[in-house]
Amino acid sequence: MTDAIKPPRGVSRRGLLTGGAVAAGGALAGGAAIAAARPDDSGRPGDPIPVAQVGGAVEPFHGGRQSGVTTEPQAHAAFVAFTLKPGTDRASLGRMLRLLSDDAARLTQGRPSLADTEPELGLLPARLTVTFGFGPGLYAAAGRADRRTPSVADLPAFRIDRLQPRWSGGDLLLQICADDPLTVAHAQRVLVKDSRPFASVRWVQQGFRRAAGAEPGRTQRNLFGQLDGTANPKPGAPADTAVWVTDGPDWLRDSTTLVVRRISMNLETWDLLGRTDREVAVGRRLDTGAPLTGAAEHDEPDFAALGPDGLTVIPDFSHLTRAHVTDDRLKILRRPYNYDGVPTAEGHADSGLIFASYQADITRQFLPIQRRLAERDLLNEWTTPIGSAVFAVPPGCPEGGWIGQQVLG
Amino acid sequence: MTDAIKPPRGVSRRGLLTGGAVAAGGALAGGAAIAAARPDDSGRPGDPIPVAQVGGAVEPFHGGRQSGVTTEPQAHAAFVAFTLKPGTDRASLGRMLRLLSDDAARLTQGRPSLADTEPELGLLPARLTVTFGFGPGLYAAAGRADRRTPSVADLPAFRIDRLQPRWSGGDLLLQICADDPLTVAHAQRVLVKDSRPFASVRWVQQGFRRAAGAEPGRTQRNLFGQLDGTANPKPGAPADTAVWVTDGPDWLRDSTTLVVRRISMNLETWDLLGRTDREVAVGRRLDTGAPLTGAAEHDEPDFAALGPDGLTVIPDFSHLTRAHVTDDRLKILRRPYNYDGVPTAEGHADSGLIFASYQADITRQFLPIQRRLAERDLLNEWTTPIGSAVFAVPPGCPEGGWIGQQVLG
Ligand code: HEM
Ligand code: HEM
Repeated sequence: MTDAIKPPRGVSRRGLLTGGAVAAGGALAGGAAIAAARPDDSGRPGDPIPVAQVGGAVEPFHGGRQSGVTTEPQAHAAFVAFTLKPGTDRASLGRMLRLLSDDAARLTQGRPSLADTEPELGLLPARLTVTFGFGPGLYAAAGRADRRTPSVADLPAFRIDRLQPRWSGGDLLLQICADDPLTVAHAQRVLVKDSRPFASVRWVQQGFRRAAGAEPGRTQRNLFGQLDGTANPKPGAPADTAVWVTDGPDWLRDSTTLVVRRISMNLETWDLLGRTDREVAVGRRLDTGAPLTGAAEHDEPDFAALGPDGLTVIPDFSHLTRAHVTDDRLKILRRPYNYDGVPTAEGHADSGLIFASYQADITRQFLPIQRRLAERDLLNEWTTPIGSAVFAVPPGCPEGGWIGQQVLG
Repeated sequence: MTDAIKPPRGVSRRGLLTGGAVAAGGALAGGAAIAAARPDDSGRPGDPIPVAQVGGAVEPFHGGRQSGVTTEPQAHAAFVAFTLKPGTDRASLGRMLRLLSDDAARLTQGRPSLADTEPELGLLPARLTVTFGFGPGLYAAAGRADRRTPSVADLPAFRIDRLQPRWSGGDLLLQICADDPLTVAHAQRVLVKDSRPFASVRWVQQGFRRAAGAEPGRTQRNLFGQLDGTANPKPGAPADTAVWVTDGPDWLRDSTTLVVRRISMNLETWDLLGRTDREVAVGRRLDTGAPLTGAAEHDEPDFAALGPDGLTVIPDFSHLTRAHVTDDRLKILRRPYNYDGVPTAEGHADSGLIFASYQADITRQFLPIQRRLAERDLLNEWTTPIGSAVFAVPPGCPEGGWIGQQVLG
């Protein structure tokens, strides 16, 4: 990769130029600069380059495609799912989406929302993105079932599932991500408040990854200690068709879909395993993330390589083998967050993954992987899906437009 | 202030020199540097200076006084309170505290704990501190009631209190703070696991402030949008005697005390107020944090100044007037974190403050302020204490020692 001197992905020129000064009427002094690193293709950080401070960095809101999908994952996320109130029809949905789009357009650019009651909390965008997802119920309420991508429907039941209604379903999803937790909290407050005439809160899942600047350019780790995100599709042409719908009518083109699964991770039993057993369960090393047949994180796994015992070095039932996809167009873009609730009195952790994957088509891409994993995956022994929801992520909107206009219009 | 070219407080020389490389056996590439700003006395950020990356920065664990008190507040905190198991005596307490001190000594320096089952998660200290607090029950269990600072006892009931047992009390507290949320989660896991033979988890409160680098050198904001922390004692001689006990026997010298109060903040009713009413309730402006009688955040409030109506400009029942302390030795060091739980179905936020204050003596310093506030403070209309706990924070320990050795020894 040759763009080590270009701004890192996800920091717009605007953010670079204005830094804290994007804030209107605020008391931000700006002044400080933070150097971030641009990962090169091998996953190692490049040379440090000066960027705007964490708080002032801005992601675009307007555009053909929504932000928060291929955006370099921010440190904090709140996934907020809503149930539409009875009687919410196409017209009222349009009003709600206009309002929420306007809120998101402002807050992501470091400006308070129109009716912001804590405007000072709206001044630090910290790469805030607000990504809108439409559940099956929204299309039904809008009388637009014909514009629902068929693959956006409740997933079939898997035998590994222990789904709880409190983490499942939803008519509308807002995925709110930023590098600052106060920015996420404030955006959540504004968006929830403005949605109240139309919808009630169904569930909220709050998650985290490494802090901005903690490990620039490195793959994040989950609470099992694994590098999580290694084999994600790389930005570029094949990934483009894997993540985005690249043709079709205007309500479909530049859309994607989102699967959110809350997966609890049993640290109690996982911690009883030796390191070798853990590495065998996934097919990768814990320290480097290298496949068991390789030396570095991004080495191609060799699923055919045999060990001295005549068995494949990467076990056939490892998570890696079962999840692996060779055809670039069938890959999924995983964008998960860790969650860590309050431990029980006995000291058992409430830890897990808010698994979130983006793909052009759930049926063609996500489902075959999930089926293979549900059928047989060593990791299932220590992980349990306890929530599940699917959403269409409609195209973006130009300045003055609103998310969903192509669907409802 | 003339030390703008010295390392910022809270980043030790070790952290500066070693950065990510403190990690033993890990896969950290380091390489990237982040520039942070050193606040000068006026609260404005100084020139950016290069420091270690957020993840590699280290706070000391060993020393005469515990870290995490006057340490520049990190972005994330978990307050973990324990109840000792029946039969836990001085000898077993000693074993527990040796173990937890050893865990903390390693993790804070970017080294996995001895029995760490996710050692890769122990490599990024991100300014991790683990601060030990002893509740009244610990002294009783240890047969050391004579070494309990008298002021460390359940607070009197205040008429504003709506305390819930699930957020109150505790025999042992670990205040775990770091600039990275995964670092906090891992340290919490290790410390809770190692405490299990001796104690059960009573409550956990997770909180946040602005991300590292989001707003270098600025006072943080709480979820009411207020600058929170302006009038904290400045580092130096008078603050020293306000926060630390500076003489007495070895179990008392260099100790302090901690009050943790969970205070819910009613955003619903607060948001109905106009800006003027909000500013009057506190006595400071929302945008700049300046007192109503001044222009800049750090201007001295003039409590005698009268407005055209003949009333004091800063109302007598404002939070500022009621909380204000002139004698430096009677001030308290507030080190609060915001919390933001899951909103109700109706979209009402579960927001508030994990109020945490350090002071040499609770009775002399904290109680008079809290009494005045409970008696009359306009802010009470929108805030409700729902949890309360008090702890002695014993002196630190040298390398090879353990926290509590002077108390139990
Ligand atoms: C708590 C649950 C899960 C954990 C802890 C987990 C962990 C991992 C790890 C450590 C890797 C290897 C590193 C990487 O490429 O990121 C991986 C790869 C992968 N996982 Fe998961 N995973 C979980 C659930 C899922 C689910 C539900 C799916 C999809 C249905 C999935 C799909 C994949 C895919 C597609 C890969 C890349 C495989 C390849 O092509 O090499 N994972 N996962
Ligand atoms: C949710 C509850 C609370 C909120 C929202 C709050 C907010 C504030 C704000 C905005 C200020 C002015 C700026 C500053 O100096 O930090 C302040 C000052 C202060 N507060 Fe609070 N506070 C709360 C609870 C408490 C409690 C429980 C105490 C102690 C019992 C306390 C003690 C103080 C003190 C000592 C000052 C400095 C006053 C001065 O000398 O100027 N506060 N608080």
